[in-house]
Amino acid sequence: MNNEALIIQFASKGTYSPDCLKLEPRALPPLRDGELLVRPLLISIDPTSRNWLKLDPQSNVLGLEVGGVMKGPCVAEVMQSRALGFAPGDKITALAGWERLSVVPAPFAQHLIEGVPAEAHMTIFSHIGLAAAAGLMHVGQLRHDDVVVVSGAAGATGSVAVEMALAHGAQVIGIAGGAEKCRFVVEVLGAAACVDYRAQSVETELKRLCPDGVTLFFDNVGGAVLDAVLMNMALHSRIAVCGQIALYNSADRSDGQGVRNLMELVFRRIRMEGFIAGEPAERAPEYIAELKRLFDAGQIRSRAHIVQGLENAPAAIAMLFAAQNKGKLMIEVGL
Amino acid sequence: MNNEALIIQFASKGTYSPDCLKLEPRALPPLRDGELLVRPLLISIDPTSRNWLKLDPQSNVLGLEVGGVMKGPCVAEVMQSRALGFAPGDKITALAGWERLSVVPAPFAQHLIEGVPAEAHMTIFSHIGLAAAAGLMHVGQLRHDDVVVVSGAAGATGSVAVEMALAHGAQVIGIAGGAEKCRFVVEVLGAAACVDYRAQSVETELKRLCPDGVTLFFDNVGGAVLDAVLMNMALHSRIAVCGQIALYNSADRSDGQGVRNLMELVFRRIRMEGFIAGEPAERAPEYIAELKRLFDAGQIRSRAHIVQGLENAPAAIAMLFAAQNKGKLMIEVGL
Repeated sequence: MNNEALIIQFASKGTYSPDCLKLEPRALPPLRDGELLVRPLLISIDPTSRNWLKLDPQSNVLGLEVGGVMKGPCVAEVMQSRALGFAPGDKITALAGWERLSVVPAPFAQHLIEGVPAEAHMTIFSHIGLAAAAGLMHVGQLRHDDVVVVSGAAGATGSVAVEMALAHGAQVIGIAGGAEKCRFVVEVLGAAACVDYRAQSVETELKRLCPDGVTLFFDNVGGAVLDAVLMNMALHSRIAVCGQIALYNSADRSDGQGVRNLMELVFRRIRMEGFIAGEPAERAPEYIAELKRLFDAGQIRSRAHIVQGLENAPAAIAMLFAAQNKGKLMIEVGL
Repeated sequence: MNNEALIIQFASKGTYSPDCLKLEPRALPPLRDGELLVRPLLISIDPTSRNWLKLDPQSNVLGLEVGGVMKGPCVAEVMQSRALGFAPGDKITALAGWERLSVVPAPFAQHLIEGVPAEAHMTIFSHIGLAAAAGLMHVGQLRHDDVVVVSGAAGATGSVAVEMALAHGAQVIGIAGGAEKCRFVVEVLGAAACVDYRAQSVETELKRLCPDGVTLFFDNVGGAVLDAVLMNMALHSRIAVCGQIALYNSADRSDGQGVRNLMELVFRRIRMEGFIAGEPAERAPEYIAELKRLFDAGQIRSRAHIVQGLENAPAAIAMLFAAQNKGKLMIEVGL
């Protein structure tokens, strides 16, 4: 069967290079027992996609390789099934190839949630919403009396984290780049304030906005932003490390902005912890249920930024680092 | 009553300046109820002393100020007592002034532990031993099957941490600067190996020594050493942050070696937590009891590096950053 796929040409180190991916014909392997042949409809474009393309062993959780197809979370339609519980025409989410047709193992496929639009499975009911939930609820131990700061607050995960923390009654302050994003965080998401890290001193502004200190920091950014927030953390506070996008485009481990204020972890007895969306696995159903409750109540909203065409996926990744997307970035594959 | 004290001349930022302290006559305040007049015998010299002398609000836990006397943990002899439970001639530990005579509030004074030499109250039964215990037992959740790495392993706290982790059955690898210190960590303390961060690549050596990853890192150093260990941490591992001496002599927050590999906290789901010796307070008696048990069994040994003369205290602080001390550094005040 004919297929077209985004094939990895080389490991993209340093500044992200969109030509590390190239659309090429790719023969499909034969379908085996336990597998599904699917047609990806929506492909999630994430900062993590960029990390995976470095092909570094420690971040290459999907085992990507040069000459192989790029992969990621997708919404897809089942075309052929050799697994129980799935039939042609079913809509699913799965880790699939960035290609027109893809073979996926059925154990990692899930039916869409009834009554939830397809795109919301990428914006909320996905690694995005699970990251917000795991970071706030599991690592962050979110309480109604927390002073929560979210960096990358206008981004896909950040905006869900802001809304979720607000829904739990916390005071929430965002950090984002540019006046337009900051307006979005305050006026649309409902945060008490948003610091523009491009135009303002994050350290000074947080000192003013949170005089008693930040009790929970949900960090997507790292680097200088993390340094500034460290100087405003409360005693015995928590930092949930979701991402460190400030450094993703570093060529190697000897350039980029390092973090200098880690001694504050000692002075302020801070717990700082990294996590992966959906972990621990035994809590994932609880997170999904909580996201559904808040989604149904209108407290978390789905905001998709859809780019048309599989061939535009490599360039779309760069939009994340230029901060050009509004809402969760995804590709609508089309025909 | 006549007295001589090391008076703080200015806040020492950047590279530590010993002349920020000057021995000057200082009148003693009158002794009030609840206070003790003591003669400091041994004064603890610590990396923390240097931090306190920056007079930064977040690290200035003792409220030091220009024109006031420098303070720190001491062994002292009671000369006059206006508090129940203390009599002239008693030997105590306390946070006292760096001076020939000092007035201390009795609630923060403690009698020496029976059968334990005075100097061991600075080397082990002090913030040093409590830091090792809190970092390993409370933050680190030390287990017998841990692969423990200790940075600054030949230092005062590091060497107690190495011995304590070994006593609990863990595999222990040190990191220290120079061949002589590394030999000490292996041959005297008993660590399985010690990486010389001056002569070797910490990242490469740990990869060889801990192929399955480090499960518990007790960090005194930070900076490039922390970056290298981050690349060798096991999944779901812990980092107990005791100190970050690599950055203590940074003039401000814009120089020095920043930490660049914090994204490993995410990839490896690492918990990194700062702590202060003796916290949480309710566990301090348990830590002291554990230190006593290991001290009596000969599994933790007291190693003092004693410099004579109060007037030499300012220069002694610099020895810590030149790594010239062997064992816990302290001043014997003399007469």
